[in-house]
Amino acid sequence: MPRYALKIEYHGAPFSGWQRQNDHPSVQEAVEAALRRLDPSVTAIAAAGRTDAGVHATGQVAHCDLARDWDPFRLSEALNYHLKPAPVAIVEAARTADDWHARFSARERRYLFRLLSRRAPPTHEAGLVWHVRQALDLAPMQEAARHLLGRHDFTTFRSSICQAESPVKTLDRLDVSARETPHGTEFRFDVRARSFLHNQVRSFVGTLERVGAGGWDPDRVAQALAARDRAACGPVSPPTGLYLVHVGYPDDPFAAAAAAGAGAGPE
Amino acid sequence: MPRYALKIEYHGAPFSGWQRQNDHPSVQEAVEAALRRLDPSVTAIAAAGRTDAGVHATGQVAHCDLARDWDPFRLSEALNYHLKPAPVAIVEAARTADDWHARFSARERRYLFRLLSRRAPPTHEAGLVWHVRQALDLAPMQEAARHLLGRHDFTTFRSSICQAESPVKTLDRLDVSARETPHGTEFRFDVRARSFLHNQVRSFVGTLERVGAGGWDPDRVAQALAARDRAACGPVSPPTGLYLVHVGYPDDPFAAAAAAGAGAGPE
Repeated sequence: MPRYALKIEYHGAPFSGWQRQNDHPSVQEAVEAALRRLDPSVTAIAAAGRTDAGVHATGQVAHCDLARDWDPFRLSEALNYHLKPAPVAIVEAARTADDWHARFSARERRYLFRLLSRRAPPTHEAGLVWHVRQALDLAPMQEAARHLLGRHDFTTFRSSICQAESPVKTLDRLDVSARETPHGTEFRFDVRARSFLHNQVRSFVGTLERVGAGGWDPDRVAQALAARDRAACGPVSPPTGLYLVHVGYPDDPFAAAAAAGAGAGPE
Repeated sequence: MPRYALKIEYHGAPFSGWQRQNDHPSVQEAVEAALRRLDPSVTAIAAAGRTDAGVHATGQVAHCDLARDWDPFRLSEALNYHLKPAPVAIVEAARTADDWHARFSARERRYLFRLLSRRAPPTHEAGLVWHVRQALDLAPMQEAARHLLGRHDFTTFRSSICQAESPVKTLDRLDVSARETPHGTEFRFDVRARSFLHNQVRSFVGTLERVGAGGWDPDRVAQALAARDRAACGPVSPPTGLYLVHVGYPDDPFAAAAAAGAGAGPE
């Protein structure tokens, strides 16, 4: 059976997360239901990141096996037709090798976290950012973030229900930037690693927000990391600002498809 | 009674527009209801732009007269408390002269229109952009937009129910730009004039979209303008991409307040 990779964008609010659960709507279930409208033989699909309830994606990647060959563009169009009106969209589809795996072939996950600092509640961006009412200082957050880079035992920044075998991970990037908006400051956290522990990004951001607000000294983040103790972590941020934006593969199926299809494409 | 200017941000979706109407929720009614929680004497408030149903604002300006003096920062905080959970926020408040008028003192209105061109339906930006499935060419849209600049009889681009006394207006700016997003192209229209006719911006954008899609030659926009005939207009765009972003005043009450309060401000 031919295998296809799907790049998926979704709004996390209506879902209990990526993973299928009994009696709760999930993104996985929405995509599988759309796939079954095209091919009743489709079984469970695998995704690169099992995002939590309320977490968004612009670049989630999953794969599926279909009974017949599909033109990838027509596959994405047909799936988007059946996904309506759920806030889930297939932004790209590509044919892959039969042994390519959305989760196990992945070599990098990138998350973006958006934090909006201003007094007034957000209107257009409600549910798309973490709204923080106090002003935050960028430089101490950047200083604290540097303590987290590299290979560490991240027990402090790991949910107590995390199922990963080891708390040791390598954090490749944790860049914090700020940009002025007409009515406030948006802080953006660009976080990259081969893989993450459960709640790791939200534990980082919630802790760094304490640093930006002046409640924590940047060095306290280094001490919290060294403690390897969940109790040493700052508050965990809400999910509303978190986006899975990119999954990296040694042979990116979407890049290969773009190169092969250059000049063709839809009208 | 002391007069206050309010800078107001709102999501247009739940409202029948700015202006109060019987049996339909309006932004004006929401703000007035919040004001009456602070001061039962408040009567109808006036705004610079009477935005239509579904149209957004990041910089609407209104004024109100209150029975007692209020610190402007505390006034905005109290109003935001009472506005919850409506997607309406007071982003700034300022004391003004007693004869200052949000509508009649205004010398410029600026609108932003956001159009997202991509195949897949939007998820995070649903309701915040006009989604167009085909690709659009920027250069012909820019060429066509130049025909509309300056002082003209804009009868072609005016709703049949427009109540303005004259169809002659001066369009000071209509800049079209494009930026690539991870999964599509966002076109932005920056439109400025002292005042606008009803549906003027949406008539411009709907017509320019036809040009970008290749259905209209840029010169046809010049001919449509010269025709002074509503039937010569292209389709009117939906309201979802339209934002009132700024109202300009000779003596901007918010700029004066910012200068006076420099260094003070909230924590």
